[in-house]
Parts: sequence; structure tokens; C-alpha cells
Amino acid sequence: MSKPAVMVIVIGTTDISLIPGISVAGATPEMTHYTPALDVEYLIYGRPRTLDIIPVTPTGIPTPALVTRAVAYDVPKLVANAGSRVPPRCPYVDLGGEPGRDFRKEPALNCGAAEELVQRGTALGEELGKLGVVYIGESIPGGTTTAMATLIALGYDAWGKTSSASPDNPKELKTQVVREALGRLGRAPPLDPLEAVCEMGDPVHVAAAAVALGVAKAGGTPYLAGGTQMAAVAAIYKALGGDVARLHVVTTRWIVEDKTADFYGLMEAVGVRHVHVATVSFAASKHPGLRAYEQGAVKEGVAMGGALYYAQLIGRDALANVEKEYERITNLTRRKDF
Amino acid sequence: MSKPAVMVIVIGTTDISLIPGISVAGATPEMTHYTPALDVEYLIYGRPRTLDIIPVTPTGIPTPALVTRAVAYDVPKLVANAGSRVPPRCPYVDLGGEPGRDFRKEPALNCGAAEELVQRGTALGEELGKLGVVYIGESIPGGTTTAMATLIALGYDAWGKTSSASPDNPKELKTQVVREALGRLGRAPPLDPLEAVCEMGDPVHVAAAAVALGVAKAGGTPYLAGGTQMAAVAAIYKALGGDVARLHVVTTRWIVEDKTADFYGLMEAVGVRHVHVATVSFAASKHPGLRAYEQGAVKEGVAMGGALYYAQLIGRDALANVEKEYERITNLTRRKDF
Repeated sequence: MSKPAVMVIVIGTTDISLIPGISVAGATPEMTHYTPALDVEYLIYGRPRTLDIIPVTPTGIPTPALVTRAVAYDVPKLVANAGSRVPPRCPYVDLGGEPGRDFRKEPALNCGAAEELVQRGTALGEELGKLGVVYIGESIPGGTTTAMATLIALGYDAWGKTSSASPDNPKELKTQVVREALGRLGRAPPLDPLEAVCEMGDPVHVAAAAVALGVAKAGGTPYLAGGTQMAAVAAIYKALGGDVARLHVVTTRWIVEDKTADFYGLMEAVGVRHVHVATVSFAASKHPGLRAYEQGAVKEGVAMGGALYYAQLIGRDALANVEKEYERITNLTRRKDF
Repeated sequence: MSKPAVMVIVIGTTDISLIPGISVAGATPEMTHYTPALDVEYLIYGRPRTLDIIPVTPTGIPTPALVTRAVAYDVPKLVANAGSRVPPRCPYVDLGGEPGRDFRKEPALNCGAAEELVQRGTALGEELGKLGVVYIGESIPGGTTTAMATLIALGYDAWGKTSSASPDNPKELKTQVVREALGRLGRAPPLDPLEAVCEMGDPVHVAAAAVALGVAKAGGTPYLAGGTQMAAVAAIYKALGGDVARLHVVTTRWIVEDKTADFYGLMEAVGVRHVHVATVSFAASKHPGLRAYEQGAVKEGVAMGGALYYAQLIGRDALANVEKEYERITNLTRRKDF
């Protein structure tokens, strides 16, 4: 019984994504602030509303929301906004947070906002947990950097261990950013969980952790659907008193095979026992934009791994569905370059 | 199979509730603008957050949210904010609407807001409809007046046929309010559905209709959980192209037995075929505040009828649960006067 009763996509932004070179979750650094809104608008409506642009990487590889929409079309989806500079124009649960700031210069969040995210996220999880298995995904450009920072702030050795949506993981830049944040802080980790989040986190990971806490509290089973960022979510969940033995993580083969990161090492460090991997390959796709996933582009996001794992569980042909949707959106946007 | 997979409470305010004597959904006319937020905060958390006050009528009879919380504790609940002057401090789905204005003086809603409510409400319903049966409740003080106005604007003879949370239905005042609105409008009904809503409606009924539309579109079954207001919701649903034969309404005995209104007449006029009634009596309660329900206080709201009907379906002792919760909140608020 690991099929999702419902899927929650927690979105938000961090100004860390504006640092040139740190995120490819958008065509330019500025566009990364639109990516979460566009992702979920597209996921819900089949086309974005805020701008008529489906998010792509700088080399034109489309958002993982495409895969989630294509293969998990029959799973109820809820968007939860933890703090996005661009609020989405679709139904979304307001968790009362705020966008994350550049934590090299100042704390990422006001602690009041982080506390509100914990309170509302837990309450949302408690309702949804009554349904059973809840998949919890994310869309936050810059999230692998904030995940590394949060894990380090919580006392884990996560230096250079988080993944990237780029085939060329900018690990030195990320490491430098986290070092600068620690320098500003002027104290050595570990910090307590809310302090770690407020100083060096972002709105999404703490909100996702709170939803997972609520799901478990209600007797449901939380599945964190994402890559190495979910180690940070699991670490916050654990630090807030969650039973990590009840937590599941579900992701893609592209994440676990990423040699620039250490997905399993992070999961082991945090104590996550239940890891599920979607094993599908896009190598045989007729579309270069999808074959790029096999070269390490994108890898995760918007619960793609969870959606693919669900398809695997029920025997649905993921690639056929993804190709069909890929063709639909290519026609929709009249772009031939991806 | 009429048990709810999930329950959505659509909230909002209308300035119609500020007209003295029109609504008892709050201790004073001004307090009615807090009622939806306090209702759902209490429903989700077990105690309100915006103010430490559980909504009561001017004579101290507690909100129907008490009953919903007490008897449907295992049903997942989602709050959807269609437009409330006081946004609730709990997780809620933002449907992009706005509070309703006093339609004696100006249109109730900007049509852009009403269209957004239709779009987002339908999208939310399409997701939740994948779960099966969706109960859709409301909290909007003044809602029986806006319901009468909307029905009349859509061409139904609803004059004096909607109910009231008061044992003394202020029908003349309501009728006068609707007449003034028609006078301002200067045109005879019927209006087209969005125009009826923008001119003489409120944010909640159109949003609830949109959620129901989406649920039906996704193959689920929409249950409107409320009293005579749901005739307006059903009429909007029908006017927007919804198949009224697929729509269910579930309410309390207190509504259908209300001699000051005509619940069944309105349902028949709109064409609703499936009506379910919770038959529980509070006559044997040891608490005067609950026995007051038998004298026509409150009657419906916050999906109370749906919650009681659900208890009836599964054989749960509603009154015992309600009394226990009543005692808990009486101690919580340290008030002995209700």
C-alpha cells in the first residue's frame, strides 16, 4: 500500500537561486522566481497562467512537472505555498510563510514565519494523513543549496553531497555560499531546528517536514517525493520530533546514480530506512529533451520520482505518457528547440 | 457509497451581514466578519487563533462547526477561502476571490474575481473529485440573504423561501434588501450566471458551485452540505453547465422542518433530485445550548448536516460526541452562559 491517496507539492522561492550559476531551474536566475508558480499552474491546468512559458533549463530541458502531470494524472494533487515571490494563479493552500532570503547576508526567514509554516503545515498534514499515503514533493529553485546549508546547520556533514538539476553540479559555488552563511552566523553548528531553518533554510523544506509530521500524527504514511533535498526535509522532521522510522523517501534513478552527490549517504546519516526508486529510463525516447534526463539534466522536482514510482507500481507505461505530454506542450508553446 | 472522502468548507464574507438584524452568525453584526475565520480555525485546530472566541449567536448558541468537528473528526477537511475580510490563520486554499460587498449599493463582486473563483474552484474540485465523494460546506454570515438574491437574479421565485440561523427568520428585512438590489440593478431577472453572482451574489456560493462542477467533471460525486443556501449553489452549478442530476444535497432535519423557509420547494425548483437529511435530535441533550437547536437556532452551517449524516451512515453516536466537545469548549472558553 504505497500508492499515494494524494500528492502535495510544496512550493516557494529562495533568493539563493538568484546567485548566478547556482540553479538551472529556470532559463535565467531571475526566471527561477517564476518557476514554482509556473510549475504548479502547468501541473494543475496543463498550461501556465502567470506567464505563457513552461519552465525550462537554460539549455531548454523542460520542468519535471511535465513528467508528474503525464504519469500521475489520476492522483489528486494539492499545491501548498510555503512562500513564493510569485504566488501561483491556481488553487493553492496558503501556509502563511514568506519567500526565503539570501542567507549569506541575513537570516533566511523570520522565525515567526517559520513557526507558522510548522503550525499550518502540520495541520494540513493531519487532515491529509487521514487519507493514508501522502506523497510530498517540492518546487524550489536553489533547493539543493539550501538543503545542504540546512543539513550542515543541523550538524550533518553534507558538504558537497546534495545533487543538482544541472549535469554539472556547481558544488564549489554552493560550498562557498554555505561557508559565507556560517561566517555571518559566527557560531558552529548544530543549531536547534527552527534556528537552523530561519538562519540557513528556506520556506519549503520546513513546510514539507511539517506536512510529513502531520501525516504521521494522523496515522498516515508520509512519502517525501524528491531527491537529496528530502534529506534536509527528513532532518527537520526528525529534529521537530518526527519518527524517522515511519518516513519514506521516493525518488528517481537519476538522483541515486548521481556521482556528484551522495543521496544514500545523506539518507543514512539522517536515518531514513525506507527508500524507493523509480527505475524507468528515458534513453529510448525519440525526443532529445527527454533523453537529456539520462545525461543528468533535471533529475528530480515537483514529485517526479514519486509520480514515476507510482506508474511503476500500477504498471503504467511512463515513457509513452511522458512523450505524449511532451509533444502536446511542444505544440502548445510552438517551440521547436526542446 | 455516500461517505465523504474529503470535506471542503468554503468560507467568505459579504457586507450584507453587517445590516443590523439580518444575520445571527456572530454575537454582533461586526463580529460576523470574523465568524468564517474563527469557524475554520476552530474546526482545524480545536480552538480559534485570530481571536480566542468560539463563534456564538447573540444569545450564546455555539457555531455549527462544533458539531462538524465533534462528529466528523476522521474526515479529512480542507478550508477554501473564496473571499473573507478576515483571512483564517490555518491552512486554507486560496481561490483568488474577494469579500462580497453590499449589493444594495454596488455590485457584490468584480466579475474578474468571480471568474477566478470559477476557474480555481473548478480546478480544486477536479483534483478532489478523483477521491470520490466530496462534501462541500460553507461558512458565510448573511448567506441565506445572498442565496435568496442570487436565486431571484437567476430567475427563480425564491422570495422569502430561504432559511435563517435565527429561530425568527427576518424575512421582511431580507426581502427589502433584495428589492433594493433589484432597484439598483434596474433590470428584471433572469441574469446570466456570472452576472447574477457579480451583481447580487457573494464569493462563497459561486466558489462552492465551481468546486462541485470540478468534482463532477473528474468523475466524483459532489454533495452540497448545507441548507437553503445550497439551492443557490445548485442553481449556479446548473447555470454554469453542471449536470444537476449528479448533484446531491445533504442537510439537517432542522432545515427541512423550518416552516419559515421552503427547502424542498427550492430544491425542486432547481431540479436537485438527491436530498439526504440527518435525522438526529438534540432534544435529549443535557445542555440548553444544544437543545436550542431543536427550537430552530443555528440549523446549518460549516457542513453540519453533512457531518451528522455521515455519523448516521456509519452508526456513530452524534449527540454523545457533540456533548463531549461542547463540554470541552465550554471549559476552554471558561464561559458558563452557553
